[in-house]
Amino acid sequence: MNPYTISLAQLDITPGRPDLNAAKMLQEIHAARERGSDIIIFSEMAVPGYLLGDEWENDSFINDSLSYNEDILAASEGIAVIWGNVYAESDKKGEDGRTRKYNAVFVAQDRKWVSNGVFEGHTFKTLMPKYREFDDERHFYSLAKVSQERDVPISSLLKPFPLQIGEKTHMVGTILCEDMWCEDYPINPTKILVENGAEMIINLSCSPWTWRKNDKRHRVVRSLLKESQVPFVYVNNVGVQNNGKNVFLFDGGSAIYTEDGYLHAMTHDYTEEVLDVQLGRASTATISDPELSDEQDLKEVYDGLVFGLRHFFSTLPTKNVVIGLSGGIDSALSAVLLTAALGKEHVYAVNMPSKFNSHLTKGAAAALAQNLGIHYTIYPIQASIDQTIDELNHLVFTSQDDSKKETPITVTPFITENIQARDRGSRVLSAIAACLNGVFTNNGNKTETALGYATLYGDVNGAIAPLADLYKGEIYALARYINQLKGKDLIPTSIIDVVPSAELSADQDVTQGKGDPIIYPYHDKLLRSFIEFRRDPEYILDLYTKETLEESLKIEAGLVKKHFPTTESFISDLEHKWKLYKINYFKRIQTPPIITVSRRAFGFDLREAQNGIHFTRRYKELKERLL
Amino acid sequence: MNPYTISLAQLDITPGRPDLNAAKMLQEIHAARERGSDIIIFSEMAVPGYLLGDEWENDSFINDSLSYNEDILAASEGIAVIWGNVYAESDKKGEDGRTRKYNAVFVAQDRKWVSNGVFEGHTFKTLMPKYREFDDERHFYSLAKVSQERDVPISSLLKPFPLQIGEKTHMVGTILCEDMWCEDYPINPTKILVENGAEMIINLSCSPWTWRKNDKRHRVVRSLLKESQVPFVYVNNVGVQNNGKNVFLFDGGSAIYTEDGYLHAMTHDYTEEVLDVQLGRASTATISDPELSDEQDLKEVYDGLVFGLRHFFSTLPTKNVVIGLSGGIDSALSAVLLTAALGKEHVYAVNMPSKFNSHLTKGAAAALAQNLGIHYTIYPIQASIDQTIDELNHLVFTSQDDSKKETPITVTPFITENIQARDRGSRVLSAIAACLNGVFTNNGNKTETALGYATLYGDVNGAIAPLADLYKGEIYALARYINQLKGKDLIPTSIIDVVPSAELSADQDVTQGKGDPIIYPYHDKLLRSFIEFRRDPEYILDLYTKETLEESLKIEAGLVKKHFPTTESFISDLEHKWKLYKINYFKRIQTPPIITVSRRAFGFDLREAQNGIHFTRRYKELKERLL
Repeated sequence: MNPYTISLAQLDITPGRPDLNAAKMLQEIHAARERGSDIIIFSEMAVPGYLLGDEWENDSFINDSLSYNEDILAASEGIAVIWGNVYAESDKKGEDGRTRKYNAVFVAQDRKWVSNGVFEGHTFKTLMPKYREFDDERHFYSLAKVSQERDVPISSLLKPFPLQIGEKTHMVGTILCEDMWCEDYPINPTKILVENGAEMIINLSCSPWTWRKNDKRHRVVRSLLKESQVPFVYVNNVGVQNNGKNVFLFDGGSAIYTEDGYLHAMTHDYTEEVLDVQLGRASTATISDPELSDEQDLKEVYDGLVFGLRHFFSTLPTKNVVIGLSGGIDSALSAVLLTAALGKEHVYAVNMPSKFNSHLTKGAAAALAQNLGIHYTIYPIQASIDQTIDELNHLVFTSQDDSKKETPITVTPFITENIQARDRGSRVLSAIAACLNGVFTNNGNKTETALGYATLYGDVNGAIAPLADLYKGEIYALARYINQLKGKDLIPTSIIDVVPSAELSADQDVTQGKGDPIIYPYHDKLLRSFIEFRRDPEYILDLYTKETLEESLKIEAGLVKKHFPTTESFISDLEHKWKLYKINYFKRIQTPPIITVSRRAFGFDLREAQNGIHFTRRYKELKERLL
Repeated sequence: MNPYTISLAQLDITPGRPDLNAAKMLQEIHAARERGSDIIIFSEMAVPGYLLGDEWENDSFINDSLSYNEDILAASEGIAVIWGNVYAESDKKGEDGRTRKYNAVFVAQDRKWVSNGVFEGHTFKTLMPKYREFDDERHFYSLAKVSQERDVPISSLLKPFPLQIGEKTHMVGTILCEDMWCEDYPINPTKILVENGAEMIINLSCSPWTWRKNDKRHRVVRSLLKESQVPFVYVNNVGVQNNGKNVFLFDGGSAIYTEDGYLHAMTHDYTEEVLDVQLGRASTATISDPELSDEQDLKEVYDGLVFGLRHFFSTLPTKNVVIGLSGGIDSALSAVLLTAALGKEHVYAVNMPSKFNSHLTKGAAAALAQNLGIHYTIYPIQASIDQTIDELNHLVFTSQDDSKKETPITVTPFITENIQARDRGSRVLSAIAACLNGVFTNNGNKTETALGYATLYGDVNGAIAPLADLYKGEIYALARYINQLKGKDLIPTSIIDVVPSAELSADQDVTQGKGDPIIYPYHDKLLRSFIEFRRDPEYILDLYTKETLEESLKIEAGLVKKHFPTTESFISDLEHKWKLYKINYFKRIQTPPIITVSRRAFGFDLREAQNGIHFTRRYKELKERLL
């Protein structure tokens, strides 16, 4: 046995900034060599970053990213370096007619490119994810396509790289992210590499956090290693990358697994860290998988949201944030997260009461601000609302044709609700944020984002939506978790206990227990079925008919019957919510970026079209049969 | 010779509504048979529509769309029917782990599925577009992948369908859209089909209008037919389809080409039409290609925008539209288009002067409203602005910690500009539109959308942006075209002649010739280089150094030197505009859908990430050398 050390470099990668990333990488290569490390491994697309939109079409950017490979090669004296970057062939075209590009891994040692017999110092990603937020197929040519183009089997292209460590040659197979998540593809790159002599598999990833993804990865690695018993190294970056509408959290989770698939070592979440691991010894210690529990899930979401907000604000000119504090649960949770992320000195809360806001919620908002120690003010909006309504009610249009017809306009109570929301979002908060050289947040949750229960240019405004990927029930769970974590009612219990309400009219008076027209414990689950599980009313009505709806959607037993005593009332609500979900995409088009934590978030992750509503023939038949 | 008739069914397809589309198709099949037609051809994805976002993941919707195939089969008594629909294999998985789906063409005749020896009554799209707005690779499995999976050559799968017409069997090769735009792929489906015996190629498309696309298609068809001399039929739908951020115009342009690539017959643009063509005669008449000219381009843009707006509004509850009429060119053009699309009785124009608006522009707004005969009113906003500024200047935040520190806020002149824009967009226009049960429009052009020269929650608001894919110079050209078309100054010349200005401060006083800080004839071209041609400052500086900038970007000779007499001033502006373009994506995330008419539009077409600014090493070297 010849012990040797590999360094898993879990860096915080800045997308679109090869200069910053390469500088950091060079520093870590030097430091690892100083520590006596034999191999240092960086993540997928460590040089350019990964979520860049169509910046991949900018050839100058590609060449710039590639130019740093020479610096890294030069720094590989006395150490092997494995890293992710883009590779380009300017003499070949991609299927879009542009410069052909690959999502590539590079391998250098002792200032030389290491050859795997097929490629000199690099190889390419084989499998191209194109679901959810991924667009690899749009930008990159794959090793699978090279095999098709050259008309050779993929196994003739997937070869390990020989690394010299002391006297010994280590055959190292390198793959990229999706290459390990291969169950729906006809190719298993890990298996082929091991068959081709790889004694170790290294996966370079740029893979965002999602619920229990680390656990799923552990299981996938185990399943891969059943067939191919070699140590498995996973290197992921930390940081935040976005494609505009979705802001993704990269937790890292870099790890090394024994050939049996046990965890040998793992980095800390959301931490920039280079983990040195000694290998090649007689026995390898193992560590347990992290526990799985609802509390662990909430901890990860909380940590992720705080990390994500801190990161997002670090890219802005100042860290100042303005938040409309209504005394409701959503803005309360948002204020807590922002304070944790940015510090109380950067958080400016504004309570903006109209005549419909209760003492209860106004007091709760003030109490929360006090608990957090943030800046606070009250900005009453009733006078402005009254003035606007008065002006509108006196407005008359005149036809500029011979008829000279006059059209007066009238403000209805419903319009008054939206005028209040827009006054807060577009008149008050926007201007205050500008005066403080800061931004403000959209505090909406996923349930109301789905149903459009929010006002465009009103409460949907903001630079970022921290909570828009959490259903209302998850908002409450996270609030309770935080109070438990802090060991005190940081979020006043009155905020958790009050009925959820927009307080935009007398019909939404919380002191009389009146609130939102949404049955959260049911509609959260119904919407999750539509959004995360891609279901529709036909599927739901099918379950309802079979009396398996509550079981299938994990709804509390008896809840459906309680709220919808008749089939008519159930169907009427089902159709109403499907319509709201579909139609209100027009608002989501214009909403801010969402910190993405679910398995399917609105935005670039769940791509929508403004196409109105459709019910299938089978739905209509089912409905007719039931009614 | 046995003459026979084929019918090119260029229908207005409603995306996401297989029920409506199938009903229309069935009606046209019956009518074509009545007229004695032998073959009727519909467009790609004629049943479900094409731009559906991720609705393709809803299995109920897929099954619903598929169910209409049985109705079409049953209707094919005495006629051959060729149409586009989705095909699904529920027993196989796509690479996303979901039900495997194909973009398919179906062929039935005399109530029987026609076999091509490989598939019974259907075949699949071979080439998957994944650039610009296209996401085929995300949703559909391709014939290319089937060939890989089955390990058989693609030529063994691409076979023509035998159609019986009278005594004769016609071998008809069917392809789908991208299959004809194959120059960047290793496979040419047309060539393979003809080699496999096809006597005619039929391309079913769902292909949006873009500048001179029809001309490009004529040339592509000719190039294909050089190798493979058979008649070529192209069937495209009309209508409007969107993916939220981009609204695409489908002009149709269905046509039949002779085996030499001459146009034999062509439908009318933007018209729902079934074109019957008699074939199989001794000689085939040909028609000339439509002329190519700047005027023809403007005509097509004008017709497309009016068609698109009419279509977009037909999906809304009412056709009422509110428009803020400033007296500037953008809102003037928008008002003209809306009036042409919806009728003057549906257009409500509002002039919203503050103290910075000149008599000149106020008068021009009124004159335009009069020319159009639309509803008009004036809503002064200065009092509201003054009130808001006064309130803000008295607002004080108090730290809710022991320091009790007070933070007053101050409204700067720049913030005052934005307060005006938000007052107009979010307080006045939003409420008026709600009162009229209508919507309002964003009238921004592409130049200001690129540079962020607009206020979020202010003038960027609206249900749709008709002009956001036209640079400022194109706005003027279209305005002049319309006046020429109408034979009068429908748009008052004062609007065309006045300096473009936001009129939000005394520094933007049009009566003193002060306007926008943008040199439109230069910056339009610079931005087009960034956006349409995917260039960056390195490329621009390279051209500048080589003194070929004006020539390459089609900028008026001498203009650059005139405005940027020194290299320093040129570079300073270049960097400033690149920064504005990149940073102001944060506004584009929250802007309305854009009617897409260029070769690259903001939104889902040009995918961006909020990643700040990067200059390449080579740019920095070039700059250093120059300065």
